Amino acid sequence: MTTPLRLGIAGLGTVGAGVAKIVAAKSNLLAARTGRPIVIAAVSARSRDKDRGVDLSGYDWESDPVTLATRDDIDVFVELMGGSEGAAKKATEAAIAAGKQVVTANKAMLALHGQELAAAAEQASVALRFEAAVAGGIPVVKALTEGLAGNQITRVMGVMNGTCNYILTRMETAGLPYDEVFAEADALGYLEADPTLDVGGIDAGHKLAILASIAFGTQVNFDAMQLEGIQRITIDDIRQAADMGYRIKLLGVAQMTGRGLEQRMSPCLVPANSPLGQLEGGTNMVVLEGDAVGQIVLRGPGAGEGPTASAVLSDIMDIARGDRISTFGQPANALEPAVGAQTAVPARYYLRMELLDKPGALAKVATVLGEAGVSIDRMRQYAHEESSAPVLIVTHKTARSALDHALQNLPGTAVLSGEPVAIRIEQV
Amino acid sequence: MTTPLRLGIAGLGTVGAGVAKIVAAKSNLLAARTGRPIVIAAVSARSRDKDRGVDLSGYDWESDPVTLATRDDIDVFVELMGGSEGAAKKATEAAIAAGKQVVTANKAMLALHGQELAAAAEQASVALRFEAAVAGGIPVVKALTEGLAGNQITRVMGVMNGTCNYILTRMETAGLPYDEVFAEADALGYLEADPTLDVGGIDAGHKLAILASIAFGTQVNFDAMQLEGIQRITIDDIRQAADMGYRIKLLGVAQMTGRGLEQRMSPCLVPANSPLGQLEGGTNMVVLEGDAVGQIVLRGPGAGEGPTASAVLSDIMDIARGDRISTFGQPANALEPAVGAQTAVPARYYLRMELLDKPGALAKVATVLGEAGVSIDRMRQYAHEESSAPVLIVTHKTARSALDHALQNLPGTAVLSGEPVAIRIEQV
Repeated sequence: MTTPLRLGIAGLGTVGAGVAKIVAAKSNLLAARTGRPIVIAAVSARSRDKDRGVDLSGYDWESDPVTLATRDDIDVFVELMGGSEGAAKKATEAAIAAGKQVVTANKAMLALHGQELAAAAEQASVALRFEAAVAGGIPVVKALTEGLAGNQITRVMGVMNGTCNYILTRMETAGLPYDEVFAEADALGYLEADPTLDVGGIDAGHKLAILASIAFGTQVNFDAMQLEGIQRITIDDIRQAADMGYRIKLLGVAQMTGRGLEQRMSPCLVPANSPLGQLEGGTNMVVLEGDAVGQIVLRGPGAGEGPTASAVLSDIMDIARGDRISTFGQPANALEPAVGAQTAVPARYYLRMELLDKPGALAKVATVLGEAGVSIDRMRQYAHEESSAPVLIVTHKTARSALDHALQNLPGTAVLSGEPVAIRIEQV
Repeated sequence: MTTPLRLGIAGLGTVGAGVAKIVAAKSNLLAARTGRPIVIAAVSARSRDKDRGVDLSGYDWESDPVTLATRDDIDVFVELMGGSEGAAKKATEAAIAAGKQVVTANKAMLALHGQELAAAAEQASVALRFEAAVAGGIPVVKALTEGLAGNQITRVMGVMNGTCNYILTRMETAGLPYDEVFAEADALGYLEADPTLDVGGIDAGHKLAILASIAFGTQVNFDAMQLEGIQRITIDDIRQAADMGYRIKLLGVAQMTGRGLEQRMSPCLVPANSPLGQLEGGTNMVVLEGDAVGQIVLRGPGAGEGPTASAVLSDIMDIARGDRISTFGQPANALEPAVGAQTAVPARYYLRMELLDKPGALAKVATVLGEAGVSIDRMRQYAHEESSAPVLIVTHKTARSALDHALQNLPGTAVLSGEPVAIRIEQV
């Protein structure tokens, strides 16, 4: 048997404990599949005493993750602390500088500092791997970076925040308003400490930014992401969408256009009978499209102890085998700056607005849309007893710039109550 | 730039030509993603003059694939000839003996000779890779071997023959009988020269045998596969299944049971609203279940030039990077013999039989089922004007052995016309 691969695990929450359990319970299997034993040398976490459902007494304990990351007796630093800045980043940088391989599940850190960390890892000739950072247990980073490496990727799409998909699915099936389901999800512990990370699309946006970098050979650029959360989606939107054969998903889309890389994380209407439309609850789905392969759809659990630990192990085992791959699939210095494109790919849009009970109101809305170059495919106005009534419009294919122009001019008509809502209908 | 990786491609059909096109058209991309140029040194095929839509004049030509496989100036032998025996096997063996890496799309060769070839490759310290052999463009071999390597795999399922899925889907949507759709598929060129390879489940069975070996660490053993084709499925079966919320798929299932490895490729009923049930036409789907990850579903094109070439490129690019992995995910001598288990996992079954118009006929059938320990969940008898009438039965969960016992005894009742049909209802 060759030399063991020695891990230092920083962060012993659900995922860290899950990794420790697998390494302890399956040593024979892991060794058979990689050709060498995989062992834990030392661990680190905030509290030493907590019961994590796994015996950690056989491993050295470090209170400082930076010390852990640079110990002589570890080969791989497994960063499972989370957080884009602070300890996680400091320890990761220290590990790289000390020539350690790094495996992390930290999507925020990679989305915000991926380029800098990839360059450092390359400089130090170490691996920086992050299968667990995107879509939990789905081996999508590997599928994209290695499995479809012979393709020019044309588009990446994904439903990658289970909490948002749970909220939208639950609103639909239970017929409950957003606020109520949000409160439920909160009570169930589904939401991040800062719930905007979930419902604002930030967490899913981090994941999309990482995939976009691999797919298009660009420097990860989360700032160029067009972000929109699910907070303004109403139960009426969901019902109307269903009525027209669609479902609303918080959908990430990345594609290279003539005007640069387009990255959007926003609510979209997708056909109810498509794989994305059929996705229920907390499950994740990623759609990868390549010029040779066509469309590949991957579906699986996006979070949780087992699935995330499974992804972390995949990276560790690749390192144990000696597999070498650039962090984002190409050398860091070969990655192009990701020029953030405005939404360039035209699409149909679903519009909802509250029309005041004024003569000629609808005509004014139609005129503004027409003048902006937005043509109407379908429209519905609902009976009303209030001073305003909902109007739903589905446009023909239109440029986002034209739509934005119309949305800017609509308030000037003085026939609307509140802000109009526009949701893209994505062709999937 | 480091030394180029030099390919020798044997077999220039659709897939071979597709690989040559990608290597020629994307040299920069492939080099950026692997760190070295990938070039074609020489090719081989039956006919030299055929127009393949790609300029091959710059490559050396070998009329004998064995000569190609052992040329000094190739690093990787790319076997795309097909056929489990003969030239493909001879050339593959020669390549391995000459210390060449091998990439193949040949499912039949691997299903029948995988163990022997894997052992030879190991002996020679070369890679033997075959992403394209299973489910076309879906990177499922990689997902299973590497992406889920930290899991004990509990079950593998797959719809992996596009032609069968096309026939079953078309029967349902067009309401046409099997024979008619079979003739259509034949006219469209969807069927293999020997159509039993498709409709008899053999082709899909080869793929499942390969996945089972990786999943369960067993020697690939196609002989132990329980094979049943789609030839006896009627339009009535499809309609009845739909009526009960199911669809019929040619489904492969491999799982480890207390009595050994169970491998089945047979028509099954699956819930119409499950990902497998929703699969239409020629698309493939593989479901991987692991103890840590839960369920991962992969969906994509199972055949065709681009998808298959994409899979071949994935293997070539892994080799270019220097990635090393055992053929079936573990050293060949560590693989256990696959003891063929009878169907051990109990399931519900759908039964269809033609009942003769005799008094007490139904009671006799019910008695035989009851005596065998098969209990009935639902039953339907249809009005009839003929001398026999169809009866449909859905059983409660039952052992296959009990069901087989009943099926053996049913003819003795002398109330049936023809053979009863039994289709497993798979829990997915």
